[in-house]
Amino acid sequence: MAKLADLDWLTYESRVGEGDAVILLPIGAIEQHGPHMSMNPDVLIPEAISVGVARLLANALVAHPIAYGYKSQVKSGGGNFFPGTTCINGKTLIDTIKDVVVAYARHGNRKFVLVNGHYENSMFIVEGIDLALEHLRHEGIEAQVVVLSYWDFVTQDTIETVFPDGFTGWDVEHGGVLETSLMLHLHPELVNMDKVMDHAPATFPPYDVFPSDPSWVPASGTLSSARNATAEFGELLMAVCVEGIAAAVREHFSAPR
Amino acid sequence: MAKLADLDWLTYESRVGEGDAVILLPIGAIEQHGPHMSMNPDVLIPEAISVGVARLLANALVAHPIAYGYKSQVKSGGGNFFPGTTCINGKTLIDTIKDVVVAYARHGNRKFVLVNGHYENSMFIVEGIDLALEHLRHEGIEAQVVVLSYWDFVTQDTIETVFPDGFTGWDVEHGGVLETSLMLHLHPELVNMDKVMDHAPATFPPYDVFPSDPSWVPASGTLSSARNATAEFGELLMAVCVEGIAAAVREHFSAPR
Amino acid sequence: MAKLADLDWLTYESRVGEGDAVILLPIGAIEQHGPHMSMNPDVLIPEAISVGVARLLANALVAHPIAYGYKSQVKSGGGNFFPGTTCINGKTLIDTIKDVVVAYARHGNRKFVLVNGHYENSMFIVEGIDLALEHLRHEGIEAQVVVLSYWDFVTQDTIETVFPDGFTGWDVEHGGVLETSLMLHLHPELVNMDKVMDHAPATFPPYDVFPSDPSWVPASGTLSSARNATAEFGELLMAVCVEGIAAAVREHFSAPR
Amino acid sequence: MAKLADLDWLTYESRVGEGDAVILLPIGAIEQHGPHMSMNPDVLIPEAISVGVARLLANALVAHPIAYGYKSQVKSGGGNFFPGTTCINGKTLIDTIKDVVVAYARHGNRKFVLVNGHYENSMFIVEGIDLALEHLRHEGIEAQVVVLSYWDFVTQDTIETVFPDGFTGWDVEHGGVLETSLMLHLHPELVNMDKVMDHAPATFPPYDVFPSDPSWVPASGTLSSARNATAEFGELLMAVCVEGIAAAVREHFSAPR
Amino acid sequence: MAKLADLDWLTYESRVGEGDAVILLPIGAIEQHGPHMSMNPDVLIPEAISVGVARLLANALVAHPIAYGYKSQVKSGGGNFFPGTTCINGKTLIDTIKDVVVAYARHGNRKFVLVNGHYENSMFIVEGIDLALEHLRHEGIEAQVVVLSYWDFVTQDTIETVFPDGFTGWDVEHGGVLETSLMLHLHPELVNMDKVMDHAPATFPPYDVFPSDPSWVPASGTLSSARNATAEFGELLMAVCVEGIAAAVREHFSAPR
Amino acid sequence: MAKLADLDWLTYESRVGEGDAVILLPIGAIEQHGPHMSMNPDVLIPEAISVGVARLLANALVAHPIAYGYKSQVKSGGGNFFPGTTCINGKTLIDTIKDVVVAYARHGNRKFVLVNGHYENSMFIVEGIDLALEHLRHEGIEAQVVVLSYWDFVTQDTIETVFPDGFTGWDVEHGGVLETSLMLHLHPELVNMDKVMDHAPATFPPYDVFPSDPSWVPASGTLSSARNATAEFGELLMAVCVEGIAAAVREHFSAPR
Repeated sequence: MAKLADLDWLTYESRVGEGDAVILLPIGAIEQHGPHMSMNPDVLIPEAISVGVARLLANALVAHPIAYGYKSQVKSGGGNFFPGTTCINGKTLIDTIKDVVVAYARHGNRKFVLVNGHYENSMFIVEGIDLALEHLRHEGIEAQVVVLSYWDFVTQDTIETVFPDGFTGWDVEHGGVLETSLMLHLHPELVNMDKVMDHAPATFPPYDVFPSDPSWVPASGTLSSARNATAEFGELLMAVCVEGIAAAVREHFSAPR
Repeated sequence: MAKLADLDWLTYESRVGEGDAVILLPIGAIEQHGPHMSMNPDVLIPEAISVGVARLLANALVAHPIAYGYKSQVKSGGGNFFPGTTCINGKTLIDTIKDVVVAYARHGNRKFVLVNGHYENSMFIVEGIDLALEHLRHEGIEAQVVVLSYWDFVTQDTIETVFPDGFTGWDVEHGGVLETSLMLHLHPELVNMDKVMDHAPATFPPYDVFPSDPSWVPASGTLSSARNATAEFGELLMAVCVEGIAAAVREHFSAPR
Repeated sequence: MAKLADLDWLTYESRVGEGDAVILLPIGAIEQHGPHMSMNPDVLIPEAISVGVARLLANALVAHPIAYGYKSQVKSGGGNFFPGTTCINGKTLIDTIKDVVVAYARHGNRKFVLVNGHYENSMFIVEGIDLALEHLRHEGIEAQVVVLSYWDFVTQDTIETVFPDGFTGWDVEHGGVLETSLMLHLHPELVNMDKVMDHAPATFPPYDVFPSDPSWVPASGTLSSARNATAEFGELLMAVCVEGIAAAVREHFSAPR
Repeated sequence: MAKLADLDWLTYESRVGEGDAVILLPIGAIEQHGPHMSMNPDVLIPEAISVGVARLLANALVAHPIAYGYKSQVKSGGGNFFPGTTCINGKTLIDTIKDVVVAYARHGNRKFVLVNGHYENSMFIVEGIDLALEHLRHEGIEAQVVVLSYWDFVTQDTIETVFPDGFTGWDVEHGGVLETSLMLHLHPELVNMDKVMDHAPATFPPYDVFPSDPSWVPASGTLSSARNATAEFGELLMAVCVEGIAAAVREHFSAPR
Repeated sequence: MAKLADLDWLTYESRVGEGDAVILLPIGAIEQHGPHMSMNPDVLIPEAISVGVARLLANALVAHPIAYGYKSQVKSGGGNFFPGTTCINGKTLIDTIKDVVVAYARHGNRKFVLVNGHYENSMFIVEGIDLALEHLRHEGIEAQVVVLSYWDFVTQDTIETVFPDGFTGWDVEHGGVLETSLMLHLHPELVNMDKVMDHAPATFPPYDVFPSDPSWVPASGTLSSARNATAEFGELLMAVCVEGIAAAVREHFSAPR
Repeated sequence: MAKLADLDWLTYESRVGEGDAVILLPIGAIEQHGPHMSMNPDVLIPEAISVGVARLLANALVAHPIAYGYKSQVKSGGGNFFPGTTCINGKTLIDTIKDVVVAYARHGNRKFVLVNGHYENSMFIVEGIDLALEHLRHEGIEAQVVVLSYWDFVTQDTIETVFPDGFTGWDVEHGGVLETSLMLHLHPELVNMDKVMDHAPATFPPYDVFPSDPSWVPASGTLSSARNATAEFGELLMAVCVEGIAAAVREHFSAPR
C-alpha cells in the first residue's frame, strides 16, 4: 500500500524508520475543468502520479492530499468566479502546507516531495515550505524538500505525440487535452467527451485585471479544447511523468550532501 | 452522484440553483486508530455518512472533505505524539473552515451541514463557522449552518445492541468497537482484526497535562478494545447515523425562519 | 498573599526561586448567568478556587486571571447573543494564553496549573498551551502544565448531596445550582435569589446551528434553575474542588519525571 | 453598582438602552513597580478612576479591565526583563482591544471611554480601536471612542502641590510619587513605604537599545523615588483625574455631531 | 511631477478628483543582480517605467514604491541566500499590498496599475489585491486594478534586436542583458560593466529543492551574462515597455464597464 | 557609497565582513505635511540623516528605507483622513520591521540603528524589533539594535536658535519650522514657502477621539506654521542630528558588552 493513511500506525512507524522514507504530498484544488469533466482533476492526477512514483521507489509513501488550493486565476484556471471553483486564501494555504510538513517531519521523516497539480498553488507552496523548514530548524531538524508540478516532466517527445498539429502551449492547458487525457486514463467515469466544447485556444493580453473580467474566458471554462484527448494519451502522459519524477527523486535524495 | 467535486461545473451550477441545495462538508483528521486499522477513519466515516445522508435528501451534495484536523488529545484520540497522527494548528483549521464555507456560499449555497468525524475539531469548527458567517454578512449573505458530530446520533437502543455487556462510554471510543465496526462495514480492507489489542478501557484523571504523558495511553493507541467490532454493527451504526442526521437536516432547513 | 500581582517584584522573585513555585492561572469569561446573578462567575469562581488551592500547597501563586473568554455557546452558556455576554475570538484567546504563559515562564517558572471556569475556553486553552510550550522549547525551556476545569473535580458524593432529587447533568449547569451556590458562598452580594427563574432544564437536539437560534434557550439565559442553590452547597463544592485540585497538583508535580 | 460585570444581564440590558450608556474600559498591565508596591497599579488605578468617573456621569458603566498589557519599556516602565513584569505581544493586545470593543458595541453600546493605566499600551489601543471601528462599520454600526491616559488629566496646580521641590517629569513617574500616592489612597495594604528605595530620578540617552540594558535602570525598578508619596496626595490626584475625565467625557458625548 | 509623494496634499487632492486619476504603484525587491550592478534594479526599473507611463497618460500619478519583495528563488533570482538579497515573508507582502491599495482607494482613487519588477512577487500581489478589493467592497468601494510585470510588454521585435544571436529565454534574465541594459540607460552610475562575469546561461532541472542548493546558481549570482548589455538597448526596452503599458492602461480604463 | 542597495553584492559582502558594519535603517511614512510641502519628508529626512551619520562612522551602510508607516494621528500628524496620507496597519508595520531586520541579520550583520522619521511608528518599531530579536535568538543569532527618532537629538541650543521667540513644543512640530527647514535644506524643490499657511499652533484636549474629528486640526494639515523655516536652520538641524546620532552610535557599539 502506497498511501500512508491506509496503513496502521505501527506499520507506518516501521516504514519511517530512520527518516529514510520519501513522503510524497499531493497538493491540488477543487476547480471547474469545463463542462465535460469533474472538478477534482487537480487532486486526483497528482495523487495518482504520486502513487505511481511511490511504486518505483524503494521506500516511498503517499500522504493524504491537500485538496483545497489557491484561488483560480483567469489565465491559468479560468478564474475564481465559476461555480464549483472552491479556493482558499493564500495565507491559509501557506499555513496548511507548513503545518502538514512539520507534522510529518516530527514523525521522523526527512525527505519530502510536494507534487503540485494546480498552477496557482506554486508560490504559496514555496512559502509554506520555507516557513516549515525555518520552524523545523528551530527544533533542530533538517529536512529536504523537492517541489514540483507534474506537467514540468512531460517531455518534448510526448508533447509532439499528444499534439501532432502543434502544441498550443502550457498556458492554455486548463481542462484541455493534457488534463482530460489523464482523467480519461485514470477516472473515465468522471469525463464525458460528448460535452467537450470546441473552441480556439484562449488568448490573453500581457496583464491581469481585478476584479476578473469573465468575458476574457471561453464560456466553457476551459482554455483550450479537449476534443483530441484520449485515454491512450493519458496513459502515456502518466508514464512519462511518473518515470521522470521517480528518476529525479531518486537522484536528488541519493546525492551526497 | 452525491460528491460535488465529481460533477462538472454546469451540473453543479444547476444543482445549487437558488441556494436550495444542502452542502454537506465532512471534516476529519489523519490520526492513528490502533494497530488494527488505517489512519483515515475520521475522514472516511463522516464522508460515507454524508453520502448516505445526501441520498436521503431531495437536493444535497457532499463537498470534498477537509482531511487534516486539530491536534489529537490524549483522552480522546490518544495524543499528538503517535507516528502517523498528523495534525494542524488551531488557527489553520479555523481559517480553512472559514475559507471553504465562504467559497461554497459565494457559489450561491445557503444551507450547510458540517459533519465532524474527529472530536478535537469541534470548537475550531465553531469558530471557523462564526468567522465565515460574519464575513458573509459583510457581503450581504445570510447562510445557515448545522454542525454535528456523527456519533451524537447513535441512539440508546443501538448502544445497547452494540455493547451488550455495557457501554464503556463515548470518552474511550477511540479505535474501539464503534469506529472499527463502521470501518469493517465501509472499508474492510483497511482493518485487520487479528491485530486488535485487547485491553481494559483507558481511565484518566480529571485533568490534562502538557507535554502529554504517553504512559497515560494504552500501548495500542486505542482507548478501548475493538475486539467485539463487527461489520454488522457497522452497518447498523451507519444506518442509525444516516437516518438521524437526515431527519435533523430535513427538519432544520424546512423550519420557517 | 496568594495572588502574585499583589506581591512586590522582589518578593515574587524569591518565591519563583529555581522554578519551584506553582503558578495557578484562572481563565474565565464575562457571560450572562441569568437574571439572578452577576456576569463574572466564570472569573470569580476559578480565581477563588485557585486561591484556595494555593493555600494548601507549599509554594503556589495565583496569577491575575484572564477574564475575557471564548464565545458562549447555546448548549453550554446560553449563546453569544445575550447582552452582557462579552467574548473574544478564538485566535485572540489562543494568543493571550500563549503570551501569558510564555511571560511567566521567562521569570523562571516551570510549573503551571490553568484553572478554567468557562467551558467554551477549553480547546483554545489547549492550543494556547501547545503553542506556548513549542515556543519555550525553542528557547530551551521545558515547562509542565496541568489544565483543568474546576467542575471536573466535583465528586459523585457531592453531586448526590447537592442534587438530592437527581442530577440534571453537567450540560445544563449554566447559571444553575452549582454556579449559583458557589457565588452565594463567595460573593453573596452578587446574587439575588428572588430573581431566580424557575424552569425545567433545557433540552437540546444532538447538533448545533449557526446563527444561533435564541428560541432554543430559556428566556432566563440559564440552562437549569438555580432555585435550590444555597451558600452551604457552595461551601461544600468549593471545598471539594479545592481539595481535589490541590491533591492532583501535588501528585503531578511531585511525580518523578 | 458601576462595574458592569457585577450586574445581571437584564439590568445591564436596561442600562444599555438605546446606546446611551457610556462604557468605561480600563486597560492596564501586570508590571513591577518597585520593591515597595504590588505589580497591579496599572490595572487598579484606571479601574478605580473609571469607577469614580462613572459615579459622576448620568449613565456610565465600568467594563471588566483588560489586565495584561504591552511589553514594559526601559524608559517608561523599567523594562520587560524584571521578574513579575508579565506582558503580551502587540498583536495580541490589538486583537483583545478590538474584540472587546466590538463585543460591547454589539450589545448596543455606542459610547466608549478607554482609560489607560500603562504608557506602553497607548499605540496598540489606538490600533485596536481603529480596527474595531472599521469592523463595526462593516456591520453598519458607528461608535464613538474617547481614549485617554489618566495622568494626562493631572493639572499643573496638582503637580505643584505634589512635587513642591519641582517636578522631575512624567518620564520618570514609574513607581514614583504619583502612582505610589494613588495606591496608598486606594490600596494601602499593597504598599510598604519602608521598602521604598531612595535614588535620584533615572536619566536616559535620547535613544533606546534592544536587547535592553538593565544597567540603565535603577536597581529598584522604579524610575524615581516614591519617598514623598502620601495617601493625601493620592486622594488629590484621584479627585483631579476623576473630575477632569468626567468633564471631558460629558462634553465630548453631549457635543452635537 | 509624476510622483505623488512629491506633491503637496492639496494638489494631490485636486488630481484625485472624482477617482479619475490612475495610480501606478511600483513593486520591487532588494536583491543581488550580479557583481556588476547594484541591488535595487527591481525597484528602480518599475518606478522609472511607471513615471514614463504616467507622462503618456492624461492623469496618472506614481505612488511611492513598495521596495521590499518576496524571497528570491534560485531559478528566477538566484536564491535567497546571497548577501544583500533582503526579502520579506509572503504574508507580510500580501498585507503591505492590501493596506497600501486600500489607503490610496480611501483617498478617492478607483483605478490602479501595479507595476511589478520582481518575478517572485507575482502571486503575493494577486492575493494582496484580492484581499484589498474584498475589504473595499465591504466599505462600498469598487476599484479596478491592472497587475503587470513590465517585461511582459517587451515585444518580439525588441527581443530580436537585443538578442541578435538568439534569446536565451526569460527564465534566465536575472542580472542579464535586459535588466543591465535598462540600468545602463537609467542609472549608469550603478553599473560597472568591467565586473560582468561571462558564463553560459544557467540551466535547471524541472523541479526546485529546499533548502536551496547554491551549486545550482552561477557564482556571479546572475542567471545569464550581461556582457552584451548597452544603454541603447536599455533605452529601446524602456520605450517599448512604457508605450505598451500606457496603451494597455488607456484601453483598459476607457473600456465601458 | 553609503546606501547599501547601491552596492553590488560582492562589495556589500565584504563590507558586512564579520558583522562589524552598522546598518542604518530609515523608517518613515507617506503623510501630508501641509500645502507647502511634499508628502515624503518622513522618508527623506531620516534617510538623509542616516547617510550623514554613515559618512561619520568607520563602517556603516544605509539600508533602503521602509517608506509606508503607521496611521497618522491627529495630535502628531494631523490625522489619517487627509488625502495623500497613506498608512498601513500596525501589524503590517510590525511584520515588515521584523522581516527586514531578520533578513539583514542573516547576511551577517549584528549592529543596527533604526532611524525613525514618523512619530506614530515608534511603538510598532519596538515590537518589530522585539519579535526580530526573539526570532534571531531561535537561530542562535544575537544582534544589537539602537532605535531612535532623529528629533530627539536636536539640542536645547539649536531649539533656541531656530525658535528665537520661544519653542511651541515638539507636539505641534508637524509640517512646521523643523521639518520644513530640513526639507528646504535637503530638497528645496519639494517646498513652496509661498503656500505656507500662517496659523497659531494647534492646541488639543488631553485625550483622543475616534473616529477622528477633523475640526480639531488646522485646515492646512500642519500643527504649527512653517513661516519661519529657512534652509539655514535646516542645515543646522541636520548637522546637530547627524553629529549627535553618530556619537551615540559610536559609543553604544564600542561599549564593551
